[in-house]
Amino acid sequence: MSLSAEFQAWMTRELAEVEACLDAWVQADAPAGLGEVMRYGVLDGGKRLRALLVLAAAQAVHGQRDAALRAAASVELIHAYSLVHDDMPCMDNDVLRRGKPTVHVQFGEAQAMLAGDAMQALAFEVLTPDVTEVPAALQATLCRLLSRAAGQAGMAGGQAIDLASVGQDLNEATLRDMHRRKTGALLQASVLMGAACGDADAPAWQALSDYGAAVGLAFQVVDDILDVTQGSDTLGKTAGKDAHHGKPTYVSLLGLDGARDEADALLAQALAALERSQLADTTSLRALAERVVSRDN
Amino acid sequence: MSLSAEFQAWMTRELAEVEACLDAWVQADAPAGLGEVMRYGVLDGGKRLRALLVLAAAQAVHGQRDAALRAAASVELIHAYSLVHDDMPCMDNDVLRRGKPTVHVQFGEAQAMLAGDAMQALAFEVLTPDVTEVPAALQATLCRLLSRAAGQAGMAGGQAIDLASVGQDLNEATLRDMHRRKTGALLQASVLMGAACGDADAPAWQALSDYGAAVGLAFQVVDDILDVTQGSDTLGKTAGKDAHHGKPTYVSLLGLDGARDEADALLAQALAALERSQLADTTSLRALAERVVSRDN
Repeated sequence: MSLSAEFQAWMTRELAEVEACLDAWVQADAPAGLGEVMRYGVLDGGKRLRALLVLAAAQAVHGQRDAALRAAASVELIHAYSLVHDDMPCMDNDVLRRGKPTVHVQFGEAQAMLAGDAMQALAFEVLTPDVTEVPAALQATLCRLLSRAAGQAGMAGGQAIDLASVGQDLNEATLRDMHRRKTGALLQASVLMGAACGDADAPAWQALSDYGAAVGLAFQVVDDILDVTQGSDTLGKTAGKDAHHGKPTYVSLLGLDGARDEADALLAQALAALERSQLADTTSLRALAERVVSRDN
Repeated sequence: MSLSAEFQAWMTRELAEVEACLDAWVQADAPAGLGEVMRYGVLDGGKRLRALLVLAAAQAVHGQRDAALRAAASVELIHAYSLVHDDMPCMDNDVLRRGKPTVHVQFGEAQAMLAGDAMQALAFEVLTPDVTEVPAALQATLCRLLSRAAGQAGMAGGQAIDLASVGQDLNEATLRDMHRRKTGALLQASVLMGAACGDADAPAWQALSDYGAAVGLAFQVVDDILDVTQGSDTLGKTAGKDAHHGKPTYVSLLGLDGARDEADALLAQALAALERSQLADTTSLRALAERVVSRDN
């Protein structure tokens, strides 16, 4: 089997398992229809890049499987809740996500806000099972990494900068800082949560951290490129909305060619970090980085 | 010093310390004004009942001080975020809270939603410090208790039942289930998080759990009584709004006298549970239960 075919097979297998975990853990029996709204927001959609980064990093460090699957589900829950809230009228006011009506369009704003709140709590529930298969120290480490990535210094902080930046001129440093927090922090945490499930030594941990930072930023640069080069049908969400909202992007700052060069440079950084890690099995991490930069949706 | 004066002194001391912790941990330097919004939402206000329950339970089991203070701050962060979100136009659309304009009135809806999201994440950040003063196993236990109390089976789930109940006839069992989740779960978790900081044996743990359940329900019954008997000035929030929104309450279900009898019965249950716990120092827990039932705001 070629490397690429092997990666495809790995990804198909892992995606099915992540979906099964989410299906089991995001239960429809939450009260008053809340479970249904949460399931609509998190199941059957998305590239699951964050979950795959967790599992690929766990693979590289021979991490515990049960912990890695819980970490994978938790990062997807945080990501999904952030989309549900970002799409609401008081934020981006978006009606289309993953090719479906957004949660507030389908269920109303109150249910969307509540379901997002419950999804964030559920992420930490999933990380702290009663079962002893996941050692308590690892549970605490995973909660530590996830909460910091989701909170004021991470995703929520980046979102605040984004809100404040509409119609503003941002320089590249501020734009980079915003994205490092808004999308980069959770992508990087995904890698580190996978690494925490195994036995990475300090240099390997640092290398994986560098890999996660580069992939996180590359993801956003490519997002900005796709926002202007692809239609809504391909993206499964409203295209061109950043330009429409007067938001600064890598493309508006660096031009389309400059943004493409930046994405390539970040890919090179990510792959160099994997070399430095000296870990044996980084095939999936390598393939994921390449996929982030070459994706078309 | 009389028992009551001793409790007052304890409470004043503990409240000052909780406020200092929140002041230190909810930092103003979160990006783009987000820290300011979070501080507005959580500092300088509220009875801090949840924090006091944590600290009183920790006192009863000789719990670790650093862990108990972190737990106390975390339950207040969850409670405060829930108020910020509940007050928003798509939920209760309330303009007054703790005698001040609500967060979305002061800062706008987008900032209110984001600050609430960041406050939930911060609760888990506070519980998972890098410092070794709080053992990893205890960090995991605290995150487990808090996430379950905040999530779909707890506060968020109760909120969903509440949303669905407007204008509906609820029987007492459903009303009780709603409140057990919406406010009871976090109040009970506060007691158990305090207990987890020490060395409660299984019977003491169960007794504290029973105490927390009774106090949690009593709190809501009294809330419903105050909603019809007090003005907005005394409450620091809009009075009479449940009746206005056609929401079922203990008063609408049991009548005012019936609700008062219910509150007294729950207080007796709480005090009986403390007896059963066989813990030596339950003075503060006892006084808090009495305070919950006799409060006038």
